Amino acid sequence: MERIDSTQDTTAFNMPDWMIQFADQKREFNKRPTKIGRRSLSRSISQSSTDSYSSAASYTDSSDDETSPREKQQKNSKGSSDFCVKNIKQAEFGRREIEIAEQEMPALMALRKRAQGEKPLAGAKIVGCTHITAQTAVLIETLGALGAQCRWAACNIYSTLNEVAAALAESGVPVFSWKGESEDDFWWCIDRCVNVEGWQPNMILDDGGDLTHWIYKKYPNMFKKIKGIVEESVTGVHRLYQLSKAGKLCVPAMNVNDSVTKQKFDNLYCCRESILDGLKRTTDMMFGGKQVVVCGYGEVGKGCCAALKAMGSIVYVTEIDPICALQACMDGFRLVKLNEVIRQVDIVITCTGNKNVVTREHLDRMKNGCIVCNMGHSNTEIDVASLRTPELTWERVRSQVDHVIWPDGKRIVLLAEGRLLNLSCSTVPTFVLSITATTQALALIELYNAPEGRYKQDVYLLPKKMDEYVASLHLPTFDAHLTELSDEQAKYLGLNKNGPFKPNYYRY
Amino acid sequence: MERIDSTQDTTAFNMPDWMIQFADQKREFNKRPTKIGRRSLSRSISQSSTDSYSSAASYTDSSDDETSPREKQQKNSKGSSDFCVKNIKQAEFGRREIEIAEQEMPALMALRKRAQGEKPLAGAKIVGCTHITAQTAVLIETLGALGAQCRWAACNIYSTLNEVAAALAESGVPVFSWKGESEDDFWWCIDRCVNVEGWQPNMILDDGGDLTHWIYKKYPNMFKKIKGIVEESVTGVHRLYQLSKAGKLCVPAMNVNDSVTKQKFDNLYCCRESILDGLKRTTDMMFGGKQVVVCGYGEVGKGCCAALKAMGSIVYVTEIDPICALQACMDGFRLVKLNEVIRQVDIVITCTGNKNVVTREHLDRMKNGCIVCNMGHSNTEIDVASLRTPELTWERVRSQVDHVIWPDGKRIVLLAEGRLLNLSCSTVPTFVLSITATTQALALIELYNAPEGRYKQDVYLLPKKMDEYVASLHLPTFDAHLTELSDEQAKYLGLNKNGPFKPNYYRY
Amino acid sequence: MERIDSTQDTTAFNMPDWMIQFADQKREFNKRPTKIGRRSLSRSISQSSTDSYSSAASYTDSSDDETSPREKQQKNSKGSSDFCVKNIKQAEFGRREIEIAEQEMPALMALRKRAQGEKPLAGAKIVGCTHITAQTAVLIETLGALGAQCRWAACNIYSTLNEVAAALAESGVPVFSWKGESEDDFWWCIDRCVNVEGWQPNMILDDGGDLTHWIYKKYPNMFKKIKGIVEESVTGVHRLYQLSKAGKLCVPAMNVNDSVTKQKFDNLYCCRESILDGLKRTTDMMFGGKQVVVCGYGEVGKGCCAALKAMGSIVYVTEIDPICALQACMDGFRLVKLNEVIRQVDIVITCTGNKNVVTREHLDRMKNGCIVCNMGHSNTEIDVASLRTPELTWERVRSQVDHVIWPDGKRIVLLAEGRLLNLSCSTVPTFVLSITATTQALALIELYNAPEGRYKQDVYLLPKKMDEYVASLHLPTFDAHLTELSDEQAKYLGLNKNGPFKPNYYRY
Amino acid sequence: MERIDSTQDTTAFNMPDWMIQFADQKREFNKRPTKIGRRSLSRSISQSSTDSYSSAASYTDSSDDETSPREKQQKNSKGSSDFCVKNIKQAEFGRREIEIAEQEMPALMALRKRAQGEKPLAGAKIVGCTHITAQTAVLIETLGALGAQCRWAACNIYSTLNEVAAALAESGVPVFSWKGESEDDFWWCIDRCVNVEGWQPNMILDDGGDLTHWIYKKYPNMFKKIKGIVEESVTGVHRLYQLSKAGKLCVPAMNVNDSVTKQKFDNLYCCRESILDGLKRTTDMMFGGKQVVVCGYGEVGKGCCAALKAMGSIVYVTEIDPICALQACMDGFRLVKLNEVIRQVDIVITCTGNKNVVTREHLDRMKNGCIVCNMGHSNTEIDVASLRTPELTWERVRSQVDHVIWPDGKRIVLLAEGRLLNLSCSTVPTFVLSITATTQALALIELYNAPEGRYKQDVYLLPKKMDEYVASLHLPTFDAHLTELSDEQAKYLGLNKNGPFKPNYYRY
Repeated sequence: MERIDSTQDTTAFNMPDWMIQFADQKREFNKRPTKIGRRSLSRSISQSSTDSYSSAASYTDSSDDETSPREKQQKNSKGSSDFCVKNIKQAEFGRREIEIAEQEMPALMALRKRAQGEKPLAGAKIVGCTHITAQTAVLIETLGALGAQCRWAACNIYSTLNEVAAALAESGVPVFSWKGESEDDFWWCIDRCVNVEGWQPNMILDDGGDLTHWIYKKYPNMFKKIKGIVEESVTGVHRLYQLSKAGKLCVPAMNVNDSVTKQKFDNLYCCRESILDGLKRTTDMMFGGKQVVVCGYGEVGKGCCAALKAMGSIVYVTEIDPICALQACMDGFRLVKLNEVIRQVDIVITCTGNKNVVTREHLDRMKNGCIVCNMGHSNTEIDVASLRTPELTWERVRSQVDHVIWPDGKRIVLLAEGRLLNLSCSTVPTFVLSITATTQALALIELYNAPEGRYKQDVYLLPKKMDEYVASLHLPTFDAHLTELSDEQAKYLGLNKNGPFKPNYYRY
Repeated sequence: MERIDSTQDTTAFNMPDWMIQFADQKREFNKRPTKIGRRSLSRSISQSSTDSYSSAASYTDSSDDETSPREKQQKNSKGSSDFCVKNIKQAEFGRREIEIAEQEMPALMALRKRAQGEKPLAGAKIVGCTHITAQTAVLIETLGALGAQCRWAACNIYSTLNEVAAALAESGVPVFSWKGESEDDFWWCIDRCVNVEGWQPNMILDDGGDLTHWIYKKYPNMFKKIKGIVEESVTGVHRLYQLSKAGKLCVPAMNVNDSVTKQKFDNLYCCRESILDGLKRTTDMMFGGKQVVVCGYGEVGKGCCAALKAMGSIVYVTEIDPICALQACMDGFRLVKLNEVIRQVDIVITCTGNKNVVTREHLDRMKNGCIVCNMGHSNTEIDVASLRTPELTWERVRSQVDHVIWPDGKRIVLLAEGRLLNLSCSTVPTFVLSITATTQALALIELYNAPEGRYKQDVYLLPKKMDEYVASLHLPTFDAHLTELSDEQAKYLGLNKNGPFKPNYYRY
Repeated sequence: MERIDSTQDTTAFNMPDWMIQFADQKREFNKRPTKIGRRSLSRSISQSSTDSYSSAASYTDSSDDETSPREKQQKNSKGSSDFCVKNIKQAEFGRREIEIAEQEMPALMALRKRAQGEKPLAGAKIVGCTHITAQTAVLIETLGALGAQCRWAACNIYSTLNEVAAALAESGVPVFSWKGESEDDFWWCIDRCVNVEGWQPNMILDDGGDLTHWIYKKYPNMFKKIKGIVEESVTGVHRLYQLSKAGKLCVPAMNVNDSVTKQKFDNLYCCRESILDGLKRTTDMMFGGKQVVVCGYGEVGKGCCAALKAMGSIVYVTEIDPICALQACMDGFRLVKLNEVIRQVDIVITCTGNKNVVTREHLDRMKNGCIVCNMGHSNTEIDVASLRTPELTWERVRSQVDHVIWPDGKRIVLLAEGRLLNLSCSTVPTFVLSITATTQALALIELYNAPEGRYKQDVYLLPKKMDEYVASLHLPTFDAHLTELSDEQAKYLGLNKNGPFKPNYYRY
Repeated sequence: MERIDSTQDTTAFNMPDWMIQFADQKREFNKRPTKIGRRSLSRSISQSSTDSYSSAASYTDSSDDETSPREKQQKNSKGSSDFCVKNIKQAEFGRREIEIAEQEMPALMALRKRAQGEKPLAGAKIVGCTHITAQTAVLIETLGALGAQCRWAACNIYSTLNEVAAALAESGVPVFSWKGESEDDFWWCIDRCVNVEGWQPNMILDDGGDLTHWIYKKYPNMFKKIKGIVEESVTGVHRLYQLSKAGKLCVPAMNVNDSVTKQKFDNLYCCRESILDGLKRTTDMMFGGKQVVVCGYGEVGKGCCAALKAMGSIVYVTEIDPICALQACMDGFRLVKLNEVIRQVDIVITCTGNKNVVTREHLDRMKNGCIVCNMGHSNTEIDVASLRTPELTWERVRSQVDHVIWPDGKRIVLLAEGRLLNLSCSTVPTFVLSITATTQALALIELYNAPEGRYKQDVYLLPKKMDEYVASLHLPTFDAHLTELSDEQAKYLGLNKNGPFKPNYYRY
C-alpha cells in the first residue's frame, strides 16, 4: 500500500499559485474563442505535457447539422435511447476507429482476456467523465468487459469525436457527449450520467474533477455508496488534495497522474518525439546546426534536449533547480541564463511550468526568424500578451504559426500562440494513451476490490505493484522478455517475486 | 525537513537478505587474501557502485619498513605526537597530493571561503572514520576551517594513503591510520580517536558504521553529548535503520548515501565512464560492433548501456522490474532473458545488486573469448565460485584479468574475479568524490546547527535544500549559470526562491 | 586495378539498367495518374533522395480556371508579354513567397551582394529548365543580379508554383510554365525559351536533361555559342555521360549532382530528419522501442539509422557492400539478411537504389501492423505490384497511407505506395535547396568565365574549390567561424590558403 | 577544374612541407632520447593516427642482458641459425602471444584456411620490414601458409617484441630484429634479409620505405626479379610517389595506406575509442560537462568529437576546410576559432595534421588545469618547444603527463609531450591491426598473381574489390550477414554480384 501522506506533501510543497488561479479560470468558462476552448481551460493547468487530450485528427467534422443533440430523438439499433450524441448513424465509422485503436492498446485487450473467467468489476457502476476518443472508448468497453456498467460524459466541450460517441451509444453505453457543447450542455450531460432512476454509481472515473465537483454539489448523498474516485489530471488531483486538506473528502481517491509509468510516457518519452514533430509540422525547419535554448530541464526538457541534440542542434539549457542544472551539465548541455544566448539562438522552447519565462524583453532581443514555442504547461510561459502591442504586426502564415513583425522588419515565429506545441501541433501516439487508460482501469479495479480499511478518505498514489503491472502489460508490444527472480534471489533481495521491486523513493 | 519514515520504509521494503548476511561477513574479518581485503568486506555490500574507495593510484607504497606504526615514536614539526601514521616524514609528499585534490574540489574550497566570517562548526568535535585519501583530507581540513576539531581513523585496513595521513598529522590533525592495519590495529586506531582524556566528540562522521558500533559497544554514555551521526555507506545506513527499528538509536542520524546528487554521480554518471575505462584498461578491446548484455537497468545499468551504445556496441538488457524494463525498451535496447543471448554476446556485464545472475550454466554456454564482469555490488552477481572446479584452468593474463579455460579450449575472460570492475580496474574522478565529501560536510553542519527538536532519534535523508546546495556548489566547475526565480514566479509556483524546488517524491 | 580517371569511371562502373530503363519510362509520358506525375517520371530515377522537387506546400491552387495559359493574353505591369504563366495577377502573392525564401537562402543573397561591383555573369544568356518554386526564383533573380539574362521553363508538368511564376514574369523574367501542363505544353514552353528572335542562349541550366535534349534535337547549331551546360539531376547527368561516351557532347558540361556538399545535404543530413518527419506525419507512431530494419547503409541509410537509433528504436541493417556493412557494425547496428528479422520488425525502410528489395514473400511474412516505406529511389525498391492481387484488400486510411489487408486480417501499412517517403510525405528544408541553388549558380559562373581550354567537351565535376565555396557561403547561417591558415601553415601543408583543402579522393 | 586521374593527384595536391621535412628528420637518426625513438622518427609523419605501431604492452623487457645479439651464437631447435634475435629461449612465451593474437585476427586465419588447397603465394619470396609484434607474426606466418618464403627485419629500432621475434625464429622464419637496435644494427638487419646467397626476393612488404630505399641503394639489380612493393605508411607511400614522379620507380607498388577500410579503422573508429582511453589513463578526468575544443574535423576529429559528445562533454570545433566545417555544424558542434573559446575550455585536442595549431599565445590564455593533447600527427601540432622557457616550470606528474606551471601558479596539463596521445597513452585494438595486416596480405597476393601488364611501374591503390574483400573477411567477427544480389538486381544496378559495388569516387 502506497500512500504519500497528503499532509506531508502539502507542507513540504505548498500549493502553487497557478493551481489556485484555477478557480478564477473557471469563471471564464465560455469566453475562449478558439477551438482549444474548454480544453485549454480545464487542461491548461496540467504540469504534465500530455495530461489528456484527443487526437489531432479529431477536430474535423464536416457534416455539421445545426440541431442540438439534446433536441434530437435518436435510438440505437437495439431500441435504446439512453444516450445523447451528435448522430447515431456515424456509429459504424466510429466503430472502425475503435477497432484500429484496439490494435494499438494491447494492454487493455490483455485485461479483457484475463477477465473472461473472473470479472473484477462485476457489480461496479462506473460514472466517467473524460475526453471521448477512440482510445477512451477502448477503455470504457474494457471496463464493461471486466463486469462494470458505465455511464459517460465528456470532460471537454470540444474534444469529443462524434463518431466514437455514436459507436459507444450504438453498442449500449449510455454516453452523453458531442463536439461543441455549450457550458449548459456540459453540465447537462454530466447530470444525465449521474441522475438516473434506479441506477447509482459506485465508482467515479474523472479527468479534471468536474464530475466529482458536480456530485459533491448536487448529490452529496451519492458518496455513501461510492467506493472511490480515480482522477488522472493535475487539476483534478489538486482539487482532491484541497478537499482532503479541508477534511471534505468522503471517499478514497486515487491520483493516477503521478504514477511512474504514466509520468515517464507523458513527459520524457512523448516529448522527446513530439518536439521534433511539432517543429517540423509547423515550420519545416532543419534541426542540424541550429542553436536552441530549452528553458527547464525536468522530464519534458530532458526529452526535448535529447531529441534536438541527437538531430544535430546545439542546445543550451536554463534551470532554476541546481540538481536539474547539474544533470544538464553532465548530459552535455551548456547551462546559461536566457539573456546570455537570447540574441544568438534560432529556437526558444519553454518547458518550465512557470510563468513569464520568455518576456517581451527577451522577445525584443531575439534575432530575425527566431522560433518561439512552449512545451511546458498552460499558455503562461511565454508572455504572449506583451506582443499584442500596436507597433508589432501579427501575420498568420499557417495554422498554428504566426509571424510577429517588429517595426524594423524582424520576424519572430510564434507557434500555437504560446500554447502547448505538443497538444496543438503534433499528435500523441496511441501507445501513450494506452498507458494512461490501463493505469485508470487498474486503479478502478484496485479501489473497487480493496478490502475494507485499506484505503481511507484520502488521496492515494497508484500502488507501485500496479504501476509495475501497467508497465508489464506494455512489454509485449516490444517483444520484451522480463526475467523472473528465482526463489533464492528473491530471498536474497528481500523481495516478493511478483514485486513491488523498488522502495517508494526510488527515482527511476 | 525531509524524513523518510523508517517504519514505512521497512514495511514497504523489507530488509534484504544480503544486508542481513552482513553480520556473517564480519566474521570473516581477516580471511581475505587480496589487497582489496577489508575494503571488500565493509564495502562489498554497497548498492552504490562507488560507495567509497580510495584512488587506484594509492595502492603503491614502495618504501615499506616493517616496524608497526604503533611501536614508533613520531612527532610532527610542532612537537605533537597525538597521531599514529606510517611515517611522518612523508608529510610533504602527502601535502602536495592534498593540494592537487583541492584544485578539483571547488565546492569544499568554496565552503571554506564562506566560512571565513562565520564558523558553522565552531565548537564541533568530530570523530571520523573514513578512507584516508587526499580527498578526505580536503574534507577534514575543510571541517577544521569551518571551526571543528577533528580526530580521524580509517574505515578500511588497506585503503589509507600513508603520505596523506602523514600530511594530516603534520598539520595537527590527530589521525590514526596506516595502510595494512591488522584487525587489532583497526579497532585500536578507532579507540584512540574516541578514548581521549579531556576531549569528547559531539559529532560522528562514519563510513561503514564501525566507529558508531564501537562507541555503542564501549562508550555508550558518549551519546549523551553527541548531536548526530552522518553515515555515507549502504552498510552503515542499514545498521542505523536496524538500530532505529530496534529502538536503540539514541541520536539523530543522517543517511547521506541516498541524497539525489550523490546517487546520480556515484551510479549513473560515474559508471557511464568507468565501464569504458575498466574494459579498456583490462582488455584493450574495441567496443564498436560488439554485442553486449547488461544485466540490470537501474542507474548503473543505464550508465553502462548509454556509454556502450554510444561507442557502437549492440546492447541487450535483462531486467526483473517491468518499469525499468520498459525504460530499457524506450531507450532502444532489446529486453531479453540472459539465456536468449548468452551464446552470441561478446561481453556480459552485471549491474543488478542481486546474486548468481550469471551462473555456471551461463558461463558454460558463452562463446570463446567472452568477457564477463561485474559493475553491480559485491562479488555475488557472477557465480565465480562455480568456476573453481578441476576441469577448468585459470590463467592470470594480467592484473585483474583471468582466462578461465574449458576442456575444449574455450576461454572466458573474467575481470577482477567478479568483484566490482569500476573499483578494481578504473579510477574514480575526484569530482565524484567532491560531491560525496560536500554532502558529508553539509550534513554535519545541518545536524550540528539544527534547532532542538528538528531531528529526533531517527534516520533522516539529507534535506532536499541541502542536496540542492551540494549541486549548486558544483555548478561553477562547469561555468554553469543558474537562473533565479523572480518574486512573481516564486509566488506563482508556490516556491521559496532559494528552494527546495521540488516535492520529495520528485524523480529527477 | 584501381586508378582514378574519368575514362575509367564510366567503364569501371557500367551504366546500370535502371538508367537505361529511363528511355522506356519516357514513353509513358502522359500515363501517370497521380499528382506526382511527370515529376516522378523524370525525377524518380534519382539516386539522390531529394534530387529536386518543389515544396510540399505547393500543390494547392484553389482558384483554377480552365483556360489554357497558352490561349491567354497577359501583360505584366511594365507592358511585357514575353512570358506564359497561369495568372499574372498572382504575382504579389508569389513575390511574398520569394521574399520569405530569400531570408533562408543567405548564400545566394551573399552572392548578389558581392556582385554589386563586378558582374561575373555580365553578357551571359542563360536558358533554364527547372522546377519553378520560390527557391528557384531566388536563384533566377540572383543570376540576373549577377548580370545574366535568363529565360526559363519548368522541368516538370506538375511542380510549378503558379504564383511564383507570375512574380517572375511580373519582374521581367520571361518564364513559360504553369502547373498541370500537358506534354505538348511542356515542350512548347521549352521551345519558347530557346526559339527567340534576336536572343540566343550561351549557357544552359538543366534539371533532367529535357532542355538539353530539345536543343540537341531542334537547334544543334545553337551549341556553337553555348559555353556550357550545368546539370543537377542523376538522370540528366547520365544522359550527358552517354553523349560524352558517344562523342556527341559538343560543349563542356558540369555535373553538379555529385558535388560533396550537395550530396551530403540531399542524402545524409536531409534524410536524417525526413525519415522521422515522414513516419510521424503519416502514422503518428512512437519511435521508442520499435524494431526497424533499414535496407541499405549508404548515405541515406546512414541518416535514417542514426535518427531512429537516437529516438530509441532498435535498428537492423541489410547491406550488399561489405565496406558499408562493416561501417554499420561499427556504428552499432546488427547486420542481418532481411529474412532473419522480417517477422519481428515494426518498420521496414528501403534505402538501396535497388529493385525488389522487399518482395511479396517478405510482405507475406511481416507481422500485423508492420509499416513499409521507401527512402531510396524511384518506386522499385518495394515490389508494390505484387500486392495488387485479388486476395489482398487495399484500404486508403489517409493521404499517402494504405492498409493492405491479408485474408487472415493482417494489415501492412504501406506509405506513399512505395514511392519516396521523403518526397511524398515530408517537406525539404529551404536550407537544402539553398545548397543546390548555390551550387548551380557557381557552376554557371565557373563555366562562363573559365579561360579557353580549361574545359573540353566532357562532363566535369564541380571544382573542389567551388564545392568548398558553396559550403563556406552557408556557414554564416550557423554563425560558424572558419579558421584561416597562416602562411607558414599553408606552406607546411602544401596548400593554397584559399583551398582546395583536400585531394580529390578525400572521402569526408 | 576537377578531373580525377593519378597525374593530377600529385600535381593538384602538392607535396606538403611536412613530407619534405622527412629527409631532414632522417638526419637526426640517433638523437632521440625517448623510448619512442626511431618510431617517432619514421612514424611521426603519418597522417593516419595509427599508421603503424606495436602494442603498448610491448615495451617491457625485464631480463635485459647486455650482449649484442649480433655477437651471439644462437640456434633454434631445428638447428638453424639463419636469424638474429635477442634470445631464442623466449620463443615459447612469444608463441603464446602469437596464439592469443591469432584468436583476434580471424581474417588472416580464414585466409590460411582457404589456402589449404591452393597456395596463392607459392613461389613468392617476400622480404619484409615492419614492426615485429604478435600481430605481424600472425601476418608473416599467414604468408608462409599461403606458400611464401619470408625474411624479415624491423622497421623501428625500439618496437620489436623480442619474444615474438624469438618465436618466429624458432618456427623457421629468418628474422633479424631486436628491441633497442643501433642505427648500424638497423641497416645490418635489413641487409641480412636481402643479401642472402641463393635466395632473392621477388616481393617487398615495407613500412616506412627503408627496406625499399636500401635495395634501391645497394642492390638495384634485384628489382629485375621483384614483382612489386606493398607499402603501408604515409611516409613510405610518399617516397614511392616521389620515385614515380622522378621516373625511377621500376616495379609496381601498392599504396595500402589509403584503402577505405584501413583508413576508417585507423582514424574514425579507432580514435573514437582511443581519445577516451588516452584521456582516462593519463588524467582520470570525468568527461561529463567538460568543455572541449577539437581542432580539425577530419576522420580523427570526427571520431574524437562523437565520443566526447556521447560522454556528455560540450565540444567546440575549429576547421579550415568549409566542407568539413559545415559537417561539424550539422553534427551539432559550434564551429569557432580557437581564440574564441581558449579561455573557457577544459581540454584542447588537436587533430589537424598541421603545425603550430596550438601556439604559446593560446597556451598563455588557457585556464588553470586545462589539458592539452594531440591526436593528429607527429609532434608539430602543439608548439611544445615554446613551453621550454625559463619562466615556466615543468613537473612530470605521471608517465606521459607533465604539468607546465606558469609564474602565477597556473598549470597546463600536457599529455605525451605533444606527441600522439593514442600511440603513447592508449593501446590499439588487435582488430584494427587485423584490418591492416589483411590488407597487406591481399595486396601481396594481388601484385604477385596479377597478369602481365595489369600493373605498370606506378603506385596503385588497393583495388576496390580487394578493399571490399578485407571488409568481408572481418564481418564474421560481428556475426554479420551480408546480403547477396540476385542476378536480376545485379543486372538492374549494372554490378557484378561479387563487387566492386561502388564507383571509385564513392565517399562512404
